[in-house]
Amino acid sequence: MNKIKYGMVGGGQGAFIGGVHRIAARMDNHFELVAGAFSSTAEKSKDSAEELGVSPDRAYGDFTEMAKAEAARENGIEAVAIVTPNNMHFPVAKAFLEAGIHVICDKPMTTSIEDARELVKLVETSGRLFVLTHNYSGYPLIRHAKAMVSNGDLGKIQVIQAEYPQDWLTDAIEGTGQKQAAWRTDPAQSGIGGCVGDIGTHAFHLAGYVSGLKAEKVAADLTSFVSGRDLDDNVHVMLRYEDGAKGMIWASQVAPGNENGLKLRIYGTKGGLSWEQENPNRLVHTPFGKPPCILTRGGPGLGPEAERMSRVPPGHPEGYLEGFANIYSEAAAAIVAFRNGQTPDKAVHFPTVNDGVEGVAFIVACVQSSEADSAWTEIER
Amino acid sequence: MNKIKYGMVGGGQGAFIGGVHRIAARMDNHFELVAGAFSSTAEKSKDSAEELGVSPDRAYGDFTEMAKAEAARENGIEAVAIVTPNNMHFPVAKAFLEAGIHVICDKPMTTSIEDARELVKLVETSGRLFVLTHNYSGYPLIRHAKAMVSNGDLGKIQVIQAEYPQDWLTDAIEGTGQKQAAWRTDPAQSGIGGCVGDIGTHAFHLAGYVSGLKAEKVAADLTSFVSGRDLDDNVHVMLRYEDGAKGMIWASQVAPGNENGLKLRIYGTKGGLSWEQENPNRLVHTPFGKPPCILTRGGPGLGPEAERMSRVPPGHPEGYLEGFANIYSEAAAAIVAFRNGQTPDKAVHFPTVNDGVEGVAFIVACVQSSEADSAWTEIER
Amino acid sequence: MNKIKYGMVGGGQGAFIGGVHRIAARMDNHFELVAGAFSSTAEKSKDSAEELGVSPDRAYGDFTEMAKAEAARENGIEAVAIVTPNNMHFPVAKAFLEAGIHVICDKPMTTSIEDARELVKLVETSGRLFVLTHNYSGYPLIRHAKAMVSNGDLGKIQVIQAEYPQDWLTDAIEGTGQKQAAWRTDPAQSGIGGCVGDIGTHAFHLAGYVSGLKAEKVAADLTSFVSGRDLDDNVHVMLRYEDGAKGMIWASQVAPGNENGLKLRIYGTKGGLSWEQENPNRLVHTPFGKPPCILTRGGPGLGPEAERMSRVPPGHPEGYLEGFANIYSEAAAAIVAFRNGQTPDKAVHFPTVNDGVEGVAFIVACVQSSEADSAWTEIER
Amino acid sequence: MNKIKYGMVGGGQGAFIGGVHRIAARMDNHFELVAGAFSSTAEKSKDSAEELGVSPDRAYGDFTEMAKAEAARENGIEAVAIVTPNNMHFPVAKAFLEAGIHVICDKPMTTSIEDARELVKLVETSGRLFVLTHNYSGYPLIRHAKAMVSNGDLGKIQVIQAEYPQDWLTDAIEGTGQKQAAWRTDPAQSGIGGCVGDIGTHAFHLAGYVSGLKAEKVAADLTSFVSGRDLDDNVHVMLRYEDGAKGMIWASQVAPGNENGLKLRIYGTKGGLSWEQENPNRLVHTPFGKPPCILTRGGPGLGPEAERMSRVPPGHPEGYLEGFANIYSEAAAAIVAFRNGQTPDKAVHFPTVNDGVEGVAFIVACVQSSEADSAWTEIER
Repeated sequence: MNKIKYGMVGGGQGAFIGGVHRIAARMDNHFELVAGAFSSTAEKSKDSAEELGVSPDRAYGDFTEMAKAEAARENGIEAVAIVTPNNMHFPVAKAFLEAGIHVICDKPMTTSIEDARELVKLVETSGRLFVLTHNYSGYPLIRHAKAMVSNGDLGKIQVIQAEYPQDWLTDAIEGTGQKQAAWRTDPAQSGIGGCVGDIGTHAFHLAGYVSGLKAEKVAADLTSFVSGRDLDDNVHVMLRYEDGAKGMIWASQVAPGNENGLKLRIYGTKGGLSWEQENPNRLVHTPFGKPPCILTRGGPGLGPEAERMSRVPPGHPEGYLEGFANIYSEAAAAIVAFRNGQTPDKAVHFPTVNDGVEGVAFIVACVQSSEADSAWTEIER
Repeated sequence: MNKIKYGMVGGGQGAFIGGVHRIAARMDNHFELVAGAFSSTAEKSKDSAEELGVSPDRAYGDFTEMAKAEAARENGIEAVAIVTPNNMHFPVAKAFLEAGIHVICDKPMTTSIEDARELVKLVETSGRLFVLTHNYSGYPLIRHAKAMVSNGDLGKIQVIQAEYPQDWLTDAIEGTGQKQAAWRTDPAQSGIGGCVGDIGTHAFHLAGYVSGLKAEKVAADLTSFVSGRDLDDNVHVMLRYEDGAKGMIWASQVAPGNENGLKLRIYGTKGGLSWEQENPNRLVHTPFGKPPCILTRGGPGLGPEAERMSRVPPGHPEGYLEGFANIYSEAAAAIVAFRNGQTPDKAVHFPTVNDGVEGVAFIVACVQSSEADSAWTEIER
Repeated sequence: MNKIKYGMVGGGQGAFIGGVHRIAARMDNHFELVAGAFSSTAEKSKDSAEELGVSPDRAYGDFTEMAKAEAARENGIEAVAIVTPNNMHFPVAKAFLEAGIHVICDKPMTTSIEDARELVKLVETSGRLFVLTHNYSGYPLIRHAKAMVSNGDLGKIQVIQAEYPQDWLTDAIEGTGQKQAAWRTDPAQSGIGGCVGDIGTHAFHLAGYVSGLKAEKVAADLTSFVSGRDLDDNVHVMLRYEDGAKGMIWASQVAPGNENGLKLRIYGTKGGLSWEQENPNRLVHTPFGKPPCILTRGGPGLGPEAERMSRVPPGHPEGYLEGFANIYSEAAAAIVAFRNGQTPDKAVHFPTVNDGVEGVAFIVACVQSSEADSAWTEIER
Repeated sequence: MNKIKYGMVGGGQGAFIGGVHRIAARMDNHFELVAGAFSSTAEKSKDSAEELGVSPDRAYGDFTEMAKAEAARENGIEAVAIVTPNNMHFPVAKAFLEAGIHVICDKPMTTSIEDARELVKLVETSGRLFVLTHNYSGYPLIRHAKAMVSNGDLGKIQVIQAEYPQDWLTDAIEGTGQKQAAWRTDPAQSGIGGCVGDIGTHAFHLAGYVSGLKAEKVAADLTSFVSGRDLDDNVHVMLRYEDGAKGMIWASQVAPGNENGLKLRIYGTKGGLSWEQENPNRLVHTPFGKPPCILTRGGPGLGPEAERMSRVPPGHPEGYLEGFANIYSEAAAAIVAFRNGQTPDKAVHFPTVNDGVEGVAFIVACVQSSEADSAWTEIER
């Protein structure tokens, strides 16, 4: 196939997630980076462009200009990756969708539920693709876990325990000029959720993705442990899912010794599953009344859902970048299908604008519940 | 020293925890079983007595009779171990305390908070010892964890995550004649708490024991997943501790693949600790900003609190029975000191009647909160 | 049953393994310690006796005197536990067997192969029981592993990897008065094998016990890394078993970070097994072409061989002392059968004098091979 | 920088390692694939070229032709990746070195020690770079382990335990048309070593890489367990290193349940290190007499050697492809330096032709030793 030309908004010098997106896009050779508004000034953007091998005439200081210019070019970009702080996701996505360009966007999708709902409409009216990089859903064993639940291997799901502890905000490093910490703890850039938005949404998404269940209500207790911090840095949530399942989410950025400890456990009437992001090539299946089994990427017992997401044989670990690249490769398949006026293969799927609304609704419900002394609060999509 | 003669109420044929108490009492050679009301009839009690090497004239069919008869003997028992279903703890403890006999009692201590409070008074007026077998506090690395928190190694404690999942009640085995399941799911014998009383209290006690913090409020969501079950079998609780610390407890008896997955994680401003009951000889210490350390029973870096609770060199695992025996050995030290009119060594400690009140108050608060749609509810001791 | 009265030779103050034997003997209430030659002088022996609740008139300063006196008493001991340094095992065992008293003896059984072979004859002519405390064979999951191999679950066994690393002799602590180190590094007390005798024999025994295969030859490379140490402290061995299976043993006392890292892995044409002593309640079964399964003590999939060796439900860890106690309980069953002129139940088994000969032959072959530049050397029983 | 244009020999349809090299080359955006002799016929090679986005006029059916043609082009390739079966490594490398093109070659480097030594000369006379893809040395924590040993953190190294078990050749799948199995078990394509060459060399290289020690002698016992297999499938080796260190290597392709279980443990007078390829983002450091520490990629306590080899923050696992890409990125740095007539930065290093000779000499010594009944045999470079 012809590689997909794509652009990027954000991801200039000092950024973190932009570099991840670029490796992910490159991994399977489906994408080529050709344009960008990498920084907020044209000059800085050109500096980044040079480093990244992007032609200077396609390095923009302004995303609106970029959307227009690229839409107008004959060989303009087919897709844009949005890797800015949260508050910029909506206006940028809007500009590119309106310009007829597919969007690959970081999460949480927007900083307000209204914006999130408007994006749903914009995607619909534009007819363009919207890919939300809830990257953890790209891990092969997460795909297998979802397939197992869907096949009924666990029986009726009753209990869902998700957690995502980190420790990097244990001290108030936002005051030291650490750029990643600064915007994530700033309501103007992050929105109303701190930890709940940054990583709580990942845990929430993964729980829903694998279980296939819709969460109806939350009772949340959000805390800012670090003095002077405006947004939450520790999140305790109880959840009630449809059909009577119950859940818990713990997310924290002040839990020393935890790096990216995303963990999911799901229990049904017939068995359980346990998966940890830091050792993502294994999934423990615990059929009730039988010995636990260890499923490995590429190993015995896996199905096509995981196989599609793998590159190398079992025992050679694939990690975070490969999982992220899986989302990009799924996006590529859909974009190519779009290009050809076709429907993508049924097996192709990725988080969409609807997952984005879910995530923002979860943040809003948690913040409201916490402010209402942890009263059960509906997640209103 | 002269071995302590003790008796037992409960623990006849088909019982589980009675046998554990007997091994624990025997392990370090401090106790000798000489009397018992092992079952509810004199005949069955005598059968058990014979198996256990207890003289038939000291096998009783009735605990009241036993308390009186043993108190009247010159060589009567110094202590009684109460290993009955929960509803019998209070009357039996009362009878023996009033007879001047020390009590070693299983948990939860009583089935009502009123009984629990009355026991506090009875202990005080009797002047006798009351030992509650929250046995997990007897593990050497739990002692070390408590010492570390107390020494300030973790800084100010902020987050406490405790869990205790099991799977043995995933199906409705209480209907099949399984004796352990039958009484634990019967409100008449267990009280108002099912899973929350049976294992939730263990998680709650351990969290408080190690952190040294008092829990003030809970917001709980208790569920009976198994159809027809009267008591909860899954417990979700958020906690607020004194000084602003927050916590979560998950306890479940319907989580397939979990045997006795008691786990405690505590995080402060300077570091964290993580411990798992199923691999109890190690404790992971995560000082903030430094590599995690693995502390092992008997290994480098441990202090006298853990050392006192160990028998064999590092790398030779000590387990559940040894931890339980540690509680008995501490009880023995206190009983011998009492015998000699002395105060036990400062290092000697074990869960007491006050921990018992705590546990019952926790159960009551969780049930009340859950009935009030998870409203924050004070733990009233 | 009437408890078995037993005596002990060795195990006085400052000893380690004597205390382990006493707890193991007491755990299941089958034994009562009533006599001992705990130390090499009558006075010290009486001091130990007092601490241990043994009557002073049965505290001996000499094992020959003890054997005679106890054999002459009406209520004399039925069995003796030998917990001395290696060089004393043979003369003590001889004395008690000749006095008609059952022997429970620590390993390695003797310091020469000639003595070992003579003990076989002595056991035969005396008609008494000889129990060798290769305690690791008492772990429930080792029993299950043996049963699986025996049932053909692994197919034909091809590869056996055993290891037992420790670190406590990394420095020359034998020079500091550390009693355990002093005798273990002294050829006069330990015999010709250092590490190979002390822990190499455990790994060797376990490999043979579980696989059911006889080792025919070794090629060994023994090293004394610590300057001035007379005996080996690191052991590299390649093995050839009957029927073409091959193996390796690594044992070391100079491998920092290892406490008692005994580990066994066995591979056949149909599957593999992996077990670690420091986490002994789990056994990983890897059927070829299927996902690995985790078998747990008391958990799903276990058979009667493991069940007999368990006391508490799954998830409550049993450890080193329980495994050791299992050997004692098996010994008790055999002694009681002997007492009654019966054959013990078929399920009862424990390491015997024949295992002792095996172990000594292994030590001899390793030392000879190492001296012959690692030439393949037969294990001559 | 301008991307490095490179070609590939081997790696057509049905191949495995070619695809890995391509991802590794692409990961960090330093290389661009522009030519190839992907298969042994021009037609098949063109098919692969089309799939890979390589221009058909640069798809060759013959490596000699390719070397000549590319050397003659103005924009010809700067480097070639050799990803054929072992027997083709030497002639292909020779052809490209003689054409003045840098070589990136798979291992083992050649099928005879004579060829290996000749390659050393060819590299020298050609003045070109030779990169051997002992990819496991590209893992960040392996770099850190090497740095720790080199800094003396472990004291004097005494014991090295390396292993690399797999299970994929447990059955005779070479007879079923499985292409990977077929050439690896065929002496004509693999050379004299089977398992020892394919994965034993990886374990051997890693042990030497991290320890910095030269192995002097081996005593080896190679076995072909699968009936009819010409080459070894299980490898037992004892090693003697310079300065008195001793080692063991176990490699197997018939150990059910093992995928790519490469593991390295190194012990010195001051401490030990343990690392496992299947969980490569952690390294356990066991300083003697102190608690073990867990070092993680990107986490506290790491130095610049590991930092250079990392892309994402700690807790987001990097795996096999990233480690492989690190070798490619180091190669890129050296190629760019060469291009500019400069010496690469001191920190840049990768396995070279000398490591290749080492590996081939190891294979030869193991086979000779095994044929001489495991006699100690010198590794003759």
